[in-house]
Amino acid sequence: MTGLDAVGEFETIRRLLAPLAHPDHARGLMDDVAVLPSRAGFDLVLTKDAIVEGVHFLPDDPLDQVAQKLLRVNLSDLAAKGAEPFGYLLACHWSPRCGWPEREAFAAGLKQDQAGFGIFLLGGDTVATPGPASFSVTMLGWVPRGQAVARSGARPGHAIYVTGTIGDGWLGLKAAQGRLSLGPERVADLAEHYRRPMPRLDFGQAVRGFPTAAVDVSDGLIADLGHIAEASGVGIMLDLEATPVSAAGRIWLDARIDPQAALADLVTGGDDYEIALSVHPRDGAKLKKEADRLHLRLTRIGEVVAGSGVTVRYLGQPVMIDRAGWTHD
Amino acid sequence: MTGLDAVGEFETIRRLLAPLAHPDHARGLMDDVAVLPSRAGFDLVLTKDAIVEGVHFLPDDPLDQVAQKLLRVNLSDLAAKGAEPFGYLLACHWSPRCGWPEREAFAAGLKQDQAGFGIFLLGGDTVATPGPASFSVTMLGWVPRGQAVARSGARPGHAIYVTGTIGDGWLGLKAAQGRLSLGPERVADLAEHYRRPMPRLDFGQAVRGFPTAAVDVSDGLIADLGHIAEASGVGIMLDLEATPVSAAGRIWLDARIDPQAALADLVTGGDDYEIALSVHPRDGAKLKKEADRLHLRLTRIGEVVAGSGVTVRYLGQPVMIDRAGWTHD
Repeated sequence: MTGLDAVGEFETIRRLLAPLAHPDHARGLMDDVAVLPSRAGFDLVLTKDAIVEGVHFLPDDPLDQVAQKLLRVNLSDLAAKGAEPFGYLLACHWSPRCGWPEREAFAAGLKQDQAGFGIFLLGGDTVATPGPASFSVTMLGWVPRGQAVARSGARPGHAIYVTGTIGDGWLGLKAAQGRLSLGPERVADLAEHYRRPMPRLDFGQAVRGFPTAAVDVSDGLIADLGHIAEASGVGIMLDLEATPVSAAGRIWLDARIDPQAALADLVTGGDDYEIALSVHPRDGAKLKKEADRLHLRLTRIGEVVAGSGVTVRYLGQPVMIDRAGWTHD
Repeated sequence: MTGLDAVGEFETIRRLLAPLAHPDHARGLMDDVAVLPSRAGFDLVLTKDAIVEGVHFLPDDPLDQVAQKLLRVNLSDLAAKGAEPFGYLLACHWSPRCGWPEREAFAAGLKQDQAGFGIFLLGGDTVATPGPASFSVTMLGWVPRGQAVARSGARPGHAIYVTGTIGDGWLGLKAAQGRLSLGPERVADLAEHYRRPMPRLDFGQAVRGFPTAAVDVSDGLIADLGHIAEASGVGIMLDLEATPVSAAGRIWLDARIDPQAALADLVTGGDDYEIALSVHPRDGAKLKKEADRLHLRLTRIGEVVAGSGVTVRYLGQPVMIDRAGWTHD
């Protein structure tokens, strides 16, 4: 099966990936391994996410943006834990459409985000596949010992907050697919949000001591709050009308006949990469202060209750939402 | 694209993967991250390898064995560095052929090798792909601070050794494909060697202080020695007739018309997962003693010289080998 990859594994590593390697710990990608000294007083936080063409990104998405989305969805997991990103290992499963220009674009996207987020490539693998392209990243970050935010500390009476706005990832996918009727500028903004989400790293690190549980919103707000509820052994009550919505999302919402159903679309849509968290009521003000300092919207959307699962209210009345969330599978 | 995966990401994690999780550091796979305390006096060694159906394993290979090969090719990278394996993150890109029974088999293979090698699952991702199945692992291990074996320390005058036998991976692929005429028992042994290679972890850790450079033989003996030559800035002279060959390999060799060409096939074939290394001549005897203690064959096959690249001799005469090694791409 030699020859499946016309570009070649070694050329790809030597010319495109080696320049991205960590100066100290990646051995210039000339070894099969990275060697990372322990950091006294810190825990290493590791996360691994994979993305598949046609499932998590569109076949005509530019590969520089695909590379950036790949890094950012992983960085978003670190953000929710309050971790400071350090570096990553990368597996590229190139499909036949990934020739030299596409790989150059992919590497350029990595380079840009490495600079933006202060991370380096530590190692990985590059292989060819006859199927759709896919990529995975193992992202590493540091957190002071014992301070990684869990999912399991939510208790009845804690408040539920979320950063930013919800639904722009889902609307952005529709926008990127040309299935959204809004002004061209709004469509471009939403598509950009889908293709290059912004992980809330600064906020996650700034508030590290406060949340009793936190999660990044990737599967959909309700599904991800469900993960907190399950891990914590509690229920979560969500007020649908409190969902923070962007200006573009508001215009889209106002054109819907059934606002409750439209909000349900937004809170199950996924791909938001905001942070949803629970916090003791006494810490709400401190949390808000940090968000204000970072010019980041922070909205109280519900509370932790006894029981299990996520219960949704709209204007005080219980409503059924029949999808637990958008799953990529 | 919801519904692409009939089995479902959450069921796969909950029922098959969560039981494999590390009891302390994986948070029951109920979080998106693993949290790993630093280990004073040790470096963390990380490696990431990916395998693709139809490229690195055969479409009819049983998935328990695919899972084991996946872990072992990564463990083999740690073995060459002298590291003690600890745990891994896993990305599964399931294809439509991966229903529940196939995933159960895959998890059973992981479970068996976790017990055999003393490792645990730390986290990862599971996604669906319409294309061929592929998998990647980020394997973590510990090595005493500063003692990870490099690729860059080979110097002229050092001796080159290799563990085990060379060519059984390549013959094993032919055997697994039904393209090898040997007795059925030999064919089965070779196919087993291809499907479930044995990483040389005990040897790698036992001799950690001796090698000046080491690599695991995955791309092919000549290609992998070429990696040492490049990283060390030296040449390597290989004596083709010294290549250690298994009993099955010997029978295959004896039936070839051109023994030199046949040996060239074996040293470029790849998938051996032995350790090739350079060592100062004074340390050769200590190396051999450790190999004997582990009942592991260890063969001197060449030496480090000034210059660059790998030069091959057969019975003292220089020979040309026109493939740098079997690349998976």
